Amino acid sequence: MPVAHNTALDDRLARARVASRALPSADRDAALRAIADALERHAGGIVEANVRDVEAERARGTAAALVDRLSLDRSRVRAVAEGCRQVADLPDPLGRVSAGWRLANGLRVRKVTVPFGVIGMIYESRPNVTVDAAALAVKAGSAAVLRGSSNALASNRALVEVMRSALTSAGLPGDAVQLIDSPDRALVTELLEARGKIDLVIPRGGAGLIRHVVERARVPVIETGVGNCHVYVHAAADLDDAGAIVMNAKLQRPGVCNAVETLLVDAAVAERFLPPLAGRLRDAGVELRGCERTLGLVPDAAPATEADWGTEYLDLILAVKVVDGLDEALAHIARYGTQHSEAIVTGELAAAERFRQEVDAAAVYVNASTRFTDGFAFGFGAEIGISTQKLHARGPMGLAEIVTYKYLVDGEGQVRD
Amino acid sequence: MPVAHNTALDDRLARARVASRALPSADRDAALRAIADALERHAGGIVEANVRDVEAERARGTAAALVDRLSLDRSRVRAVAEGCRQVADLPDPLGRVSAGWRLANGLRVRKVTVPFGVIGMIYESRPNVTVDAAALAVKAGSAAVLRGSSNALASNRALVEVMRSALTSAGLPGDAVQLIDSPDRALVTELLEARGKIDLVIPRGGAGLIRHVVERARVPVIETGVGNCHVYVHAAADLDDAGAIVMNAKLQRPGVCNAVETLLVDAAVAERFLPPLAGRLRDAGVELRGCERTLGLVPDAAPATEADWGTEYLDLILAVKVVDGLDEALAHIARYGTQHSEAIVTGELAAAERFRQEVDAAAVYVNASTRFTDGFAFGFGAEIGISTQKLHARGPMGLAEIVTYKYLVDGEGQVRD
Repeated sequence: MPVAHNTALDDRLARARVASRALPSADRDAALRAIADALERHAGGIVEANVRDVEAERARGTAAALVDRLSLDRSRVRAVAEGCRQVADLPDPLGRVSAGWRLANGLRVRKVTVPFGVIGMIYESRPNVTVDAAALAVKAGSAAVLRGSSNALASNRALVEVMRSALTSAGLPGDAVQLIDSPDRALVTELLEARGKIDLVIPRGGAGLIRHVVERARVPVIETGVGNCHVYVHAAADLDDAGAIVMNAKLQRPGVCNAVETLLVDAAVAERFLPPLAGRLRDAGVELRGCERTLGLVPDAAPATEADWGTEYLDLILAVKVVDGLDEALAHIARYGTQHSEAIVTGELAAAERFRQEVDAAAVYVNASTRFTDGFAFGFGAEIGISTQKLHARGPMGLAEIVTYKYLVDGEGQVRD
Repeated sequence: MPVAHNTALDDRLARARVASRALPSADRDAALRAIADALERHAGGIVEANVRDVEAERARGTAAALVDRLSLDRSRVRAVAEGCRQVADLPDPLGRVSAGWRLANGLRVRKVTVPFGVIGMIYESRPNVTVDAAALAVKAGSAAVLRGSSNALASNRALVEVMRSALTSAGLPGDAVQLIDSPDRALVTELLEARGKIDLVIPRGGAGLIRHVVERARVPVIETGVGNCHVYVHAAADLDDAGAIVMNAKLQRPGVCNAVETLLVDAAVAERFLPPLAGRLRDAGVELRGCERTLGLVPDAAPATEADWGTEYLDLILAVKVVDGLDEALAHIARYGTQHSEAIVTGELAAAERFRQEVDAAAVYVNASTRFTDGFAFGFGAEIGISTQKLHARGPMGLAEIVTYKYLVDGEGQVRD
């Protein structure tokens, strides 16, 4: 490995490894409740630290919406603590026998869930992720090594300090939660190359962060998040449902990965569907960027460029394309989609079934908004991110997705012929 | 990406992608049987091609055992064809609903197995892997892009040609199986960086190959194979069982990853156990490399160096260490093991349970040989490799491990609040 050896990081990872070994048999739920209590008890100090981050960010001239994502008041700290308690209340993901059988020679095989060991999280901005990720990792029996963004450093330090001392007071090793709090970027690279010292890295943030992690990582990674999601309004769609689904998928929370970015409208219904919908979207502040046929029906839309079909806006912008039926919709999604969440609105069984079969995405919706792709909506109780890869976990990742398994094989002296 | 764009490879991967889309709904089992029949029908030509590889290898002065691994006679071709038929007989791994539930808002969620799409295999030497890997990939609904070693190139070309024309004759696209048959190493690097064009790469071969793949890959990888496996003979072991397990784990097939490489013997039984076992091992041609205490009991053993504890010999060599109880055995395995297969021989319940809990490995054995860690022994019917990573698949990988899943969500116009 070409990176200079950093003793401090190595030492942290070694301590995380040792701490992780104590977790599976410890009372992790009691520790999470202790963390929740401590966060509420120390809310004042946490908010104070956060004010320093927020003021520095304001001084930099950052947009108000981004500053808001960064800020923690007492009620947000309470919500974060409540999230910890909810994680504590979830069933233990460890020790679950997912399969078991007997071989002809009498050996008994069990496939049992076990922790990864040390999980790294590399994420941006929102300091609540610091607690959410640590709580999920600890519940899953793994130590968490956290690397937040530098603009949340004071907040993250305060949160991690509270979590570490709460862990210790609950009889668990504080080293099970660690913050990499040096702004040195080389540490991220070294973390990504620490084979054998870290078992899994989950990046959470924008496309740039994800790409950097995937390109540099020599350790296992689960990619999260980029969602260029489509809603396809089929010729046999209920147009009222279709309108409600598009409005919801675009507007209910435009800045998240499961929001819709491109609307595909079947030519058979475009004339009836698009003009009234365009009016509703415009009234809600959405900018439309349309293909030529869309512009013919919605003259005040901007012309879409090739780049629009591939862009995750995360904003009040919607690309619109009129397509000649299911084949063209499927081809468009295959070409521009990011395998996150894709929806068809239709009343035709055959169209629904082809869409389900042929769309290659984590979540494929028939007659529902793409906004449901997350761990809470799916009923997982919490989520650590939304995977856009096919290896290990796809779509919303809850506790079941951040454990691994081992085979336990029991015999009475069996040997192989 | 710093690598020059190679149109030929890009074109192949694009054709593999298109071919893969036809597989899930095709009669893949009939195609596999057609491949098996064609391999037998063309056995003469395949053996002829193989002779060219074998002769070139002999001319290079390669050791007879390695040349044997490379060679295919008619009976080996028949065995390879039979393997294809066995894969055809296995249950379809696609379309399995592994979970399904209803949300409070009425949405129905199903988690369904689906193909990866395009699977790359990078492997060494034995040409039977060419057919095994292609058959498993096709059965799992994915196109296979194969890169064997250059010394098997003529054999692999012949095998792939037969498979491709058999696929075509069965009505499936021949492009579902492709061989990268240029010796240009840069193609491997490009394959490993073909994000979005290849969904999974599985390297199978020596430690050097695996390391190269892991270091260069920007696409998802499942690491396979390196096994520095231990058998720990506990103080409460049945020593007859222990002897039989060690002999089997070392000798039944010394060149494979689940063979034992280091024997750990509890000090309490070392004097009774080691000298007679050493005699049997010596008679079987095994070279012993012992710690100091071992040398005291087995004077003709060679002294083990630090390197011995970390070496996967894949040969008739066994490292031996006397340990003071379970703690030292666990610490040794944690330090030197490769998380593959680890065994304890004991009659004591508490020792067995601590070993199961604390050893971090794909397969943990109580009173059985480590040699059982493979897809056939585990009852998977076939295997594409043995994973030594924790992400996605651990231990033997059969058909169930080379598919992924998607969520299908069905509604009647549901939107998110």
